[in-house]
Amino acid sequence: MKLILLSGGSGKRLWPLSNDSRSKQFLKVLDNNGVLESMVQRVWGQLKEVQLNDNTVIATSKSQVDMIQNQLGSQVPLIIEPERRDTFPAIALASTYLKSIKGTNLNEIVVVLPVDPYVDITFFERIKDLEVVLEKSEADLALLGVKPTFPSEKYGYIVPIQNNDNDYIRVNYFKEKPSEEEARYLISNNALWNCGVFAFKLKYIITLLEAKGLPINYEELEKQYKNLEKLSFDYAVVEKAQKIVALSYNGDWKDLGTWNTLTEEMGTNQIGKGIISEDSTNTHLVNELDIPITVLGIKDAVIAASPDGILVADKLSSPKIKNILKNFEQRPMYEERRWGWYRVLDYTKYEDGNEVLTKRIGVKAGCNLSYQRHFLRTEVWIIIRGEGEFVINDKIRIVKPGDILAIPIGAKHSIKANTNLEFIEVQTGPQLIEEDIERIFMTWEEIIYHCTS
Amino acid sequence: MKLILLSGGSGKRLWPLSNDSRSKQFLKVLDNNGVLESMVQRVWGQLKEVQLNDNTVIATSKSQVDMIQNQLGSQVPLIIEPERRDTFPAIALASTYLKSIKGTNLNEIVVVLPVDPYVDITFFERIKDLEVVLEKSEADLALLGVKPTFPSEKYGYIVPIQNNDNDYIRVNYFKEKPSEEEARYLISNNALWNCGVFAFKLKYIITLLEAKGLPINYEELEKQYKNLEKLSFDYAVVEKAQKIVALSYNGDWKDLGTWNTLTEEMGTNQIGKGIISEDSTNTHLVNELDIPITVLGIKDAVIAASPDGILVADKLSSPKIKNILKNFEQRPMYEERRWGWYRVLDYTKYEDGNEVLTKRIGVKAGCNLSYQRHFLRTEVWIIIRGEGEFVINDKIRIVKPGDILAIPIGAKHSIKANTNLEFIEVQTGPQLIEEDIERIFMTWEEIIYHCTS
Repeated sequence: MKLILLSGGSGKRLWPLSNDSRSKQFLKVLDNNGVLESMVQRVWGQLKEVQLNDNTVIATSKSQVDMIQNQLGSQVPLIIEPERRDTFPAIALASTYLKSIKGTNLNEIVVVLPVDPYVDITFFERIKDLEVVLEKSEADLALLGVKPTFPSEKYGYIVPIQNNDNDYIRVNYFKEKPSEEEARYLISNNALWNCGVFAFKLKYIITLLEAKGLPINYEELEKQYKNLEKLSFDYAVVEKAQKIVALSYNGDWKDLGTWNTLTEEMGTNQIGKGIISEDSTNTHLVNELDIPITVLGIKDAVIAASPDGILVADKLSSPKIKNILKNFEQRPMYEERRWGWYRVLDYTKYEDGNEVLTKRIGVKAGCNLSYQRHFLRTEVWIIIRGEGEFVINDKIRIVKPGDILAIPIGAKHSIKANTNLEFIEVQTGPQLIEEDIERIFMTWEEIIYHCTS
Repeated sequence: MKLILLSGGSGKRLWPLSNDSRSKQFLKVLDNNGVLESMVQRVWGQLKEVQLNDNTVIATSKSQVDMIQNQLGSQVPLIIEPERRDTFPAIALASTYLKSIKGTNLNEIVVVLPVDPYVDITFFERIKDLEVVLEKSEADLALLGVKPTFPSEKYGYIVPIQNNDNDYIRVNYFKEKPSEEEARYLISNNALWNCGVFAFKLKYIITLLEAKGLPINYEELEKQYKNLEKLSFDYAVVEKAQKIVALSYNGDWKDLGTWNTLTEEMGTNQIGKGIISEDSTNTHLVNELDIPITVLGIKDAVIAASPDGILVADKLSSPKIKNILKNFEQRPMYEERRWGWYRVLDYTKYEDGNEVLTKRIGVKAGCNLSYQRHFLRTEVWIIIRGEGEFVINDKIRIVKPGDILAIPIGAKHSIKANTNLEFIEVQTGPQLIEEDIERIFMTWEEIIYHCTS
């Protein structure tokens, strides 16, 4: 069997710690024997434990690539969606990848699951069982359902056919977000929460693509990706399947997508600088700022701070953050990248339209920025830490702390860290946007060869 | 009559908005017809209204001079304590100043009051009455007492002699911080809250200095200031006075020294960037950061944020902040100065002992920094806004946005803003402290003359 992990979009329910480049699954807040890990790291560790990781690929978007490689290593196989187009195109692309690139047999069973279920290890054992059930039942799809612990109005329910003699469930129908009363009724009829796991034969999805007149070759589908309809897998596939079966999983299953649910699993009340007074019971603090936070006599609250913002919320109110921030857009203030990280220290737009942005940037030893230039801004770099090689307009120089590097508009430039390197960057120009960048596609070796020959 | 306003020390009860250079009296949080003003500005405005401001001097410390001049103008007469040594030395120094520098007659009446009483205008009318009472009663001291509104355990009480026929109060004794029961008893005997106002003839304090063998000349006393004993005026003078009288003031009197009392007078629930949800009743937000703060479902709380720290406190718990921060020392992250302001953007101390500090600095048009040099750090300035003149080692150049100024260790340097000027400063060195500065005492004109001749 092959696994496809879907690493989904940003979501603002864990603002201010989640932003466009750092979705909730990357937040390192879960306790693993005293070490903090993210949801992605937790799930990857569990896949290793049941020896499924070698059969797993991760479907994600370009913006998450650096984050995933930082957290799981650069060897993890990624299928990169050219842009976000919902779950059906994402699963279709991953399936053609398995067929075209990995040469996976069309009779092989593929299991799709989200990258961030908070579950115990038996969840993955049940995933293995899906293979057997799909073969035996000859169903189009096999799902995993979680035994409900309360009549939730938030989840989708898998409703079984009654009086079924098999050791698996035959699905009668699905019910999304029922009322509490209805949920109670469904549970009494053995309905399960749908946890977003889908198992099918690779053949099934490939045939479906052919029927829709879509390419079944990975490169072809990738090329057409931006024209694909935004469709969920539920709508495009599940609703149209002839025969669906399910297995039940009876262990822990939690959606850690909101602050009140996430903090329950944090294992510590405080991450980052600050003080929580003793009478601040059931209050959690996650502080990614250098500024200390003091919490005095505040109960049942979550305080989360990052350079993007500061949230002070009653835990029960915390899921409402999404609505409050609906029209709230801002530049990410901290990002991790393949080559290191940056933090925005200061940003100002003056009345005359000129903008100034100050960042602190860290480049990991051995890594380099791409060879690039900008057309709307000058940059000044002041090296504050480590040693490296700086290239500007095809000239190389060694740099060390105290060096000041002026980068005029249009100048090609890059830097490589020989040891962990840090610098302060001051950008100035009429429009400081990440898109004002022209990358010259050369490896560091190519740059050096080009400069010295 | 002459007034001495005592502008006292920092205090941490309004952390993180008050720090060593910005005591609570300078926080602009009070509403004055839609404009925010500080306690100092409010009191100064009231003194103007009753035409007492021309007779007023402010006794303060060096660290508050720039702040007072920014808020009240550079013309306000200041008596600058060489260092903090409690209220008796401060009042003594101010008294000798009146005698030696202002030539005040020794029979003139002097009234000392704190710089930050939150009172209505009749308070100052009563201060005028103290003059009459002191003459008439021939007492050593005349005080102002506030009619108590509840049996507070926090204040000091002035207890009158009973069966007094005069139209002023004769003081029997003082009681500091009584129990609630005792306070109730004192109030039933017409006791008043002591609000820290002292009136006396200049002669009285000068005689007292002579008796103690201390100089009665201002310059002499200033020279010996650092050797003076740290004594409160209450202990050194009030406790030893033969005859003390008092007047009662029946208007509003509030100590806005803690977040719960201060927010009651704020007049707005929010200052600075952020959102407070509608169900966050009786919650106040004061945010001096550029980072937005979202408050969701938190009642009866104060959230205050500055580059120094972030406080999230239940209002009733907020006075405890002082205890929690007892051992908490840090560099001020934002300061206002005579010439402008600076904000710390980033600070790091590396394992090898090297430090890097990044500031954004604003110099007001027409102002200049002192001509100075440092022995433990290099500085790089990147001009981001405005135009000015930069001097380094006696050479002048005109600077504009985009200019990069490298200041090596030991180099004399200064800058003058021709228009409002801003720059990013990156300091690097083994020990980045404000004390690493050697000032060359020259006016800007002298610097220019020196450089061009």
